[in-house]
Amino acid sequence: MGNRKQIIAAIIIIGNEVLSGRTKDLNSSTLSLWLNSLGINVKEIRVIPDDEKTIIDIVNKLRKKYNYVFTTGGIGPTHDDITSQSISKAFNLEYGYHKEAFTILEKYYESGEFNEGRKKMAKMPTSANLILNPSSGAPGFYVENVFCLPGVPSILKSMIGGLNNVLVGGDPILSKTINLKTYESEIAKSLTNVQNKNKEVEIGSYPFFRQGKLGVSIVLRSIDQNKIDMCNSEILKFVKEKNIEIVDFE
Amino acid sequence: MGNRKQIIAAIIIIGNEVLSGRTKDLNSSTLSLWLNSLGINVKEIRVIPDDEKTIIDIVNKLRKKYNYVFTTGGIGPTHDDITSQSISKAFNLEYGYHKEAFTILEKYYESGEFNEGRKKMAKMPTSANLILNPSSGAPGFYVENVFCLPGVPSILKSMIGGLNNVLVGGDPILSKTINLKTYESEIAKSLTNVQNKNKEVEIGSYPFFRQGKLGVSIVLRSIDQNKIDMCNSEILKFVKEKNIEIVDFE
Repeated sequence: MGNRKQIIAAIIIIGNEVLSGRTKDLNSSTLSLWLNSLGINVKEIRVIPDDEKTIIDIVNKLRKKYNYVFTTGGIGPTHDDITSQSISKAFNLEYGYHKEAFTILEKYYESGEFNEGRKKMAKMPTSANLILNPSSGAPGFYVENVFCLPGVPSILKSMIGGLNNVLVGGDPILSKTINLKTYESEIAKSLTNVQNKNKEVEIGSYPFFRQGKLGVSIVLRSIDQNKIDMCNSEILKFVKEKNIEIVDFE
Repeated sequence: MGNRKQIIAAIIIIGNEVLSGRTKDLNSSTLSLWLNSLGINVKEIRVIPDDEKTIIDIVNKLRKKYNYVFTTGGIGPTHDDITSQSISKAFNLEYGYHKEAFTILEKYYESGEFNEGRKKMAKMPTSANLILNPSSGAPGFYVENVFCLPGVPSILKSMIGGLNNVLVGGDPILSKTINLKTYESEIAKSLTNVQNKNKEVEIGSYPFFRQGKLGVSIVLRSIDQNKIDMCNSEILKFVKEKNIEIVDFE
């Protein structure tokens, strides 16, 4: 620890379902472990209700107290998803369709499927920076030091790696995603072998359900493109051996 | 939510191991579900570090704001267990051996086994009320409206029943869950309409992926069963119209 300045963070879990005990919060542990690995210390976690005034008050209090604040939950399409609007108010920023988010979602959904509910997921502070979502399209966002992520644990997990560069300086972290029509259990062992041989590539595995397709997204991250390419080849090798279909969403 | 007085509570999870992400907090969900069944609404959960000043500040803030405050963790035998002492300071009460607690622990451990560390578990505000521990001897305690429980989930679970007669709850909060094979965006608009017509029922919408099934859980919560039933009928109506399958997990 010594004399180094500590970088500190708070996590705000937004959701009545967690307060009621019905849903166990898995996200704060995911975020804490990840932030720790970046040298960021989580000093406080709060679980608060889907209530605009509460969200605004606590976000405004904590964003002054900590280097970083992370929120989870409340950025989906339904009436109880009020985080994006509350963050706009907390920062006194215009709330509306975010151009880039709208374009992403428009491309993600087939024409005719991009309905009102889905459009709502493009609404946020219009000047926010996006946090891309490799597993289900709808992006998160950040404004200054406040980072807003979704509540679904598998989706949140697939998104946070994209922030590694934003939160700490250093070499950019490159990534490659491979979408497979398979189950995680089918490839777990092979993937472990690849990971063990490629310590400098972070290999993530995230189940997806997208455009009627169920499968697993494998995300490779590293600062070294050559190492990603090597990993990619090894994965494609076992994918071929196992006769697993590669899914192309383009 | 009508004119009835709500009984509200906060939970404080004390522990660096939870903040670091190393240990997943299971206690807040246990406490919330149990408190709900007693008609007590948990409005806030905080995870805070093993730091005396922080514990004192937050306990003193929350005990004025809520009918009940529950803490978990930090009442064990080691140097980092500082909850009991911090609570004594928060209430400005003498910290020392609690007579009854000491007797309980003395009986619990065979002579010679009742060492310093174990004796420390009898130290707390000397005037506190005990919360008996049927599974491992060492009691928790409460002072006014602040209830201090251990961090080990199985032990905490075995102790809370002893408080059913001590806590005064409001009307029990009833709930009904409807699991649908659909996407949130498919039902967002209809659900908003139902929520707008039924202000006294809290309607939550939560995507699930469970037993290989993807869908949305709609959770209705209210103290009034009739209002839940009415909401339920309105939801089943649009579910039928939209030809959405209901998922049964039993």
